[in-house]
Amino acid sequence: MLSDIEIAQNAEMYPIGKIAAELSIAEEDIEYYGHYKAKLSEQLFQKLDSKPNGKLILVTAINPTPAGEGKTTVSVGLADALHQIGKKTVLALREPSLGPVFGIKGGAAGGGYAQVVPMEDINLHFTGDMHAITSANNLLCAMLDNHMQQGNVLRIDQRRVMLKRVLDMNDRALRNIVIGLGGKVDGIPRSDSFQITVASEVMAILCLASDLADLKERLGKILVAYDLDGNPVYAKDLGANGAMTALLKDALKPNLVQTLEHTPALIHGGPFANIAHGCNSIRATKLALKLGDYCVTEAGFGSDLGAEKFFDIKCRYGGLKPDCVVLVATVRALKYNGGVPKTELTTENLDALKKGIVNLQVHIENMKKYGVPVVVAINRFQCDTDAELHFIQEFCESLGAEFALTEVFAKGGAGGKELAEKVCKTIETKPSNFHVLYDTELSVEEKVEKIAKEIYRADGVTFTAPAKKALAQINALGCGNLPVCVAKTQYSLSDDAAKLGKPEHFTITVRDVTLSNGAGFVVVLTGNIMTMPGLPKAPSALKIDCDNNGNITGLF
Amino acid sequence: MLSDIEIAQNAEMYPIGKIAAELSIAEEDIEYYGHYKAKLSEQLFQKLDSKPNGKLILVTAINPTPAGEGKTTVSVGLADALHQIGKKTVLALREPSLGPVFGIKGGAAGGGYAQVVPMEDINLHFTGDMHAITSANNLLCAMLDNHMQQGNVLRIDQRRVMLKRVLDMNDRALRNIVIGLGGKVDGIPRSDSFQITVASEVMAILCLASDLADLKERLGKILVAYDLDGNPVYAKDLGANGAMTALLKDALKPNLVQTLEHTPALIHGGPFANIAHGCNSIRATKLALKLGDYCVTEAGFGSDLGAEKFFDIKCRYGGLKPDCVVLVATVRALKYNGGVPKTELTTENLDALKKGIVNLQVHIENMKKYGVPVVVAINRFQCDTDAELHFIQEFCESLGAEFALTEVFAKGGAGGKELAEKVCKTIETKPSNFHVLYDTELSVEEKVEKIAKEIYRADGVTFTAPAKKALAQINALGCGNLPVCVAKTQYSLSDDAAKLGKPEHFTITVRDVTLSNGAGFVVVLTGNIMTMPGLPKAPSALKIDCDNNGNITGLF
Repeated sequence: MLSDIEIAQNAEMYPIGKIAAELSIAEEDIEYYGHYKAKLSEQLFQKLDSKPNGKLILVTAINPTPAGEGKTTVSVGLADALHQIGKKTVLALREPSLGPVFGIKGGAAGGGYAQVVPMEDINLHFTGDMHAITSANNLLCAMLDNHMQQGNVLRIDQRRVMLKRVLDMNDRALRNIVIGLGGKVDGIPRSDSFQITVASEVMAILCLASDLADLKERLGKILVAYDLDGNPVYAKDLGANGAMTALLKDALKPNLVQTLEHTPALIHGGPFANIAHGCNSIRATKLALKLGDYCVTEAGFGSDLGAEKFFDIKCRYGGLKPDCVVLVATVRALKYNGGVPKTELTTENLDALKKGIVNLQVHIENMKKYGVPVVVAINRFQCDTDAELHFIQEFCESLGAEFALTEVFAKGGAGGKELAEKVCKTIETKPSNFHVLYDTELSVEEKVEKIAKEIYRADGVTFTAPAKKALAQINALGCGNLPVCVAKTQYSLSDDAAKLGKPEHFTITVRDVTLSNGAGFVVVLTGNIMTMPGLPKAPSALKIDCDNNGNITGLF
Repeated sequence: MLSDIEIAQNAEMYPIGKIAAELSIAEEDIEYYGHYKAKLSEQLFQKLDSKPNGKLILVTAINPTPAGEGKTTVSVGLADALHQIGKKTVLALREPSLGPVFGIKGGAAGGGYAQVVPMEDINLHFTGDMHAITSANNLLCAMLDNHMQQGNVLRIDQRRVMLKRVLDMNDRALRNIVIGLGGKVDGIPRSDSFQITVASEVMAILCLASDLADLKERLGKILVAYDLDGNPVYAKDLGANGAMTALLKDALKPNLVQTLEHTPALIHGGPFANIAHGCNSIRATKLALKLGDYCVTEAGFGSDLGAEKFFDIKCRYGGLKPDCVVLVATVRALKYNGGVPKTELTTENLDALKKGIVNLQVHIENMKKYGVPVVVAINRFQCDTDAELHFIQEFCESLGAEFALTEVFAKGGAGGKELAEKVCKTIETKPSNFHVLYDTELSVEEKVEKIAKEIYRADGVTFTAPAKKALAQINALGCGNLPVCVAKTQYSLSDDAAKLGKPEHFTITVRDVTLSNGAGFVVVLTGNIMTMPGLPKAPSALKIDCDNNGNITGLF
C-alpha cells in the first residue's frame, strides 16, 4: 500500500473555489491561500446567520492505546461516506502543530484513503494560524518583560509571572530557562519557560471566541502575573490585547480545504486536550453547521477528556447541541485494555476482549449521561475475527448503542457507508436530549468531583495542599464559577496511565490548579503535564525532504 | 494630512490577479493569499528564462540621519512615476519585520502617497515568509540541542554553538539566556541567545539562493557549532537541511503586491543590513527584471553599507548588472551632516549645507567607482529654500551626477516625474560599466582594507586580537575567499556614529569576524551589533488595535 503522503500527492484536488461554490459561498467571501486552501470571510457568518443549523456529529473514542484507534481517519471517512450517500456534509477538524510533525507523532490529517488535503500544507504552515498565535503570545510576553524593564509601574513580581513564551516546535531545551541576563540594558533576570504554541491560552481563546470583539476581550483577560501585593495583572493592564487582536484577525477566520473525495473540511484551531479543551474552534463548527446539513467534528484523546470538554466547555460556550456521538474503538485496542501486550494483539482472544470491553462500556454509558445517542465505530483490521466483531456488536446493542464496522483507511468513504447509514438512522430515530454535566455555579471542588465520579468512575477527589492554595487564590479572583478543564493522562479513565479497562476503587488526586481566565476555564492538574515536548533520538525531521521541484517527501 | 495607514486604507486596490495579468502572468502561476497578495510560482521563472532583462535601478542614500531620508518612499514613488510616464516598471523591496512594527520604527511599506499596499498585511504576517524562516531556523536549533541530548555522536561542544534561536519580535529579555535547565530529561544546560528573525543566516540564505536546490545546499552549509576537537559542525551533519527546505519551499517564492497607484511590487526577503547584506531576494529582483522593462530596487542604510553589499554580494552572487543608482538625500539631512542640531533643520543654512554636502559627495564618488551612473534625488520638504536646492543641484552636476527633486510623499508618482525622466535619460545616455569592487581571491584583510579605504575613506584597518584569532579559524576552514559583509554603524562613513559629513584621518577597527557559510560571506564586525532589539518605554504596540470589523488602526 502507498504511504499517506503518496496517496495525498496522487490525489487530484479540486480548486478550492469549486469546493466553496458547492457550498454556495460567494467569491467575495473566499480568501485564497494558494490553489487549494482558503480562509472564509467574517461577512459569511452574518450572511448565514438566519440559516438553520445542520446536525452535529461528534467523533470521540475509547481511551487511546499504543495500538492506535484512528479517530481522525474515521472522522474524515465518515464525512466522505455521508457525502457519498448524498448528505451535504462539512468536516470540522483541528489544525496540526509543527512540533509532532518533526518529532515522533507525524502529521494529523487523517490516514490512508481518509485524509484531508493538501496534506503537506496542512501539516506545515497551512494558512499561518499557528504562527499568528505564536506572535500574539510572544508579543504579550515581550510587553510584559518590557514593562518590568521600563520602570514597572504595575509592580509586577518577576517571581510570579504566569505567562509563558511559545514556539511551534518540540524543543525540550527551552522547558526551563533563565532570561534577562547580560546586564542593565538586557532586561530583568527571571526564570521562564517556553511551551509549544498549541498549549498556549491564546490558542484556547482563539478556539472559544465567538467573534473579534469577544476575542479581544478574552485576550485582555489573560492573567499574566501577580504584582508585589498579590493582585492579579491582566493582559489588558499591559495594553496588549489590541495589538494581539490585530495579529490574530486573519487567524480567527476558519480555513477551508477538502478531503481526498472532495468533501469540504474546515480545519481551524487545535488546542492541547489536557491543559485545554482539545477541539477545533467554535467558529469553524458553527460555520460547518450553517454550510452543511451534517457537521462531523472531533475531540482529542478519549471521551473522558475530549468529549467531556467538548460538551462541558465548547458546547456550553458555543451554544452547540450535538445530535450524535460516534465512539471509535478497535478490536486490538479493546484486547489491549484486556491486558494483552502490544505484540500479541493480532491473535484472536475473546477472553481478553471480554475483559477489555468494559472500557468501551464506560464510554458508551458516559455519552448517554449527556443525553446524546451513540454509534460505536469499529475500525476494522485484517486480523479481527468474526467472533470478536460479533461479540462487540452484541455488547454495544445490549447497551442501546448502534454498531458499525469501518474500513475508511483502506477504502475511503466507501468503507464508511455502514457507519454513515447508522449515524443517519440514529439522528432520525433517536432525538438528542443534550445537556451539560454540571452547573458552573457549583464550586470547583464539586465540579471536579462530579466529573471524577460520573465520568472517570472514581470514588472521590483529593486536593493536595498546593492545589488547595492555588484554588483559594482563584476563588479570591472570583473565578470559581468557570467550567473546569481537567488535565489527566489520556491512557486511563483514572489518573494512573497504567490502569486500563475500567479502573475501580481509586481516587483522583489534584496536584495543582491554574486559571485560564481569558479562555474561561479553571485547569485542574492531576499530574505533571508536559507542555513542551522533546524530539526523539531519530526525529521525523531527518526523513522529511523537499526536492528541486518543491515536492515534499517523508511526511507521514 | 492623513496618516499613512489612513491613506492606505482609503486606497482602492486592484484584485492582485489584475496586477498579475497586466504583467502577462498566467493564472496557474499565481498563488493567491487573500484578494491583494500572491506568491508567484517556480515555473514562472522557467517560462521567463529566455526573456531579456529590464533595466536595474538601485535606490540608495547618504548616511541616514534622525531627520529621515525616505528611501523606500522614493523607491515607491519613482516606480509609480515611471509607471505614469508609460514605462513597464516592477518594484522589488524588502519585507518588513514584526519587531520594528510593534517597537519604535513602525512599518516599512513607504509613506504618504508612495506606499505599497495592503499596508497592514505587508507589515504584519504578509504571506508568512518571516514565520517560515523562524520555524526553519528554530528546527535546526532544536535538532542541534536534541543531538547533544541524545548521545552527542558528533561530539558538539556546547560551549561553542554558533547558531542562535530566533523570534520575529523585539524582546531584549531573550538576548542572554541559559537553556536546558531542569535536569536530565530537559536538555544540556548552556548559554544561548535569541536574535530577531531578520538577523538570521537563514534569512540571508533565502535572499541569496537561486532556487530550491541552491537553498538546500546553502542551508546545509550553515556552521552550527564546533566539536570538542575544534572541527566544524554544519547543518547537513545534523541532517536538518531537507526538513528546513520543506519549511521554506513557499517562502522562496516572491510575493506580488501593488503600490497605491497599482504599480506591481515584488516584496520578498529582508535581511539585516549590518551583519547581513540588507537587500530583498535575488529571486525577486531577477523576476522583476524579467517582468518589467524597469526594476526599481533598494538597499538598506546608506550606500557605504547598502549599495556596497548590493553590488559586492548580491549582484556578484546573482549575476546582476545595475544600470543606474538613485542616491536619496534631503536638505535637512545634509545640514545635519554639516553640524546643525535636529531642532534647527527647518531654517535656511547654506554654510551648514556646504559643510555637510561632503557626505553626499563621497556617496556619489563611491557609486562611480562601481561604474554605475548616478541620479541624486532630493526629497523635498516645505522648509527647503530655493538657494539651498540650487546649491545642491550645482554641486551634483559638477560631479557629473544628475539631480532631481521629488515630492512623492505628498504627491505619489506625480511628485517623482522629474526623477523618473532623469533616470530614463541617464539609462539611455550613460551606459553602466558595472563591476564589483574587489576580487574574492584577495585575503579577508585585503578585502576589508579595500572597502575601508575606497568606500569609507579610512586610512586603514586594524584587526583586534580576537578578530585575528576568529579570522585564522575561518581561513582554516577554507572560507577566506568569500565576499565580506561589514557590520558598521550606518550613521557615519567611519565606525564612529558621531562622525558626520566626511570623516578624515580615521582607521576602522575590526573587533570580531564571523562566518555565514551558507549565505556565503564573512561578517566583519566593527562594533557591537544589536541583533535583538528591545521595545521602547511606550511601544507602538500600545497604539495598534483592531476593531470589530477587522480594521486595523495605529500602524504607521
